[in-house]
Amino acid sequence: MDTPDFSAFCDRSEAECPEREILTHVMSRWGSLALILLLSRSYRFNELRRRIGGVSDKMLSQTLRTLEGDGFIHRHDFQEVPPRVEYSLTPLGRGAAEHVTLMGKWVAANTQNVLAARKRHRDQN
Amino acid sequence: MDTPDFSAFCDRSEAECPEREILTHVMSRWGSLALILLLSRSYRFNELRRRIGGVSDKMLSQTLRTLEGDGFIHRHDFQEVPPRVEYSLTPLGRGAAEHVTLMGKWVAANTQNVLAARKRHRDQN
Repeated sequence: MDTPDFSAFCDRSEAECPEREILTHVMSRWGSLALILLLSRSYRFNELRRRIGGVSDKMLSQTLRTLEGDGFIHRHDFQEVPPRVEYSLTPLGRGAAEHVTLMGKWVAANTQNVLAARKRHRDQN
Repeated sequence: MDTPDFSAFCDRSEAECPEREILTHVMSRWGSLALILLLSRSYRFNELRRRIGGVSDKMLSQTLRTLEGDGFIHRHDFQEVPPRVEYSLTPLGRGAAEHVTLMGKWVAANTQNVLAARKRHRDQN
């Protein structure tokens, strides 16, 4: 795979390069998992928080706001009492989520190889 | 794309789930850019640091050590004076780098859509 033109974006700082900033959003610790989950179906906030082990309310709120601002997810407020709000992927977000999911699947398929490499590395050092 | 089995890994904390930990390594701010660059060719440390705008020596060292420990990159010390050390992808790392690069290319191709979505979001709020 040839990457000369594409990798040019690495050279510029995040402040100058929206590509790099967007990449950190879709690949963020919580953002990546939210995208993976939302690829299957829409979620309410608390349900999503429960699915993603270890995320705080505050971090998940920030993450979803960032992804909403980038146009990756849609926040639908049903205007009900008690409040009912659902998050789902936009068509743009679906593209991002598919790539993150492919990455996640690759990791899941290669976890044993990484664990074996870690063991070899420990034994050598 | 169906993800029920795969997304189960989101439920567990990073400490319990090597998949999640590995995903944060390959998708990390500096790790992702290092993998993208190394997909084209091998790099010496200073050359890589110069290519990745904004990374400090310390952060890049930590990042490369983590990726080396996971078996994604190979550190070759030529045992010369002055020291000459080169970093390259292992076959395992090439798989990870290809996925990160596909993600990066998708972001690069969709940056204008994200910037337009951000503008709409600002105008509505």
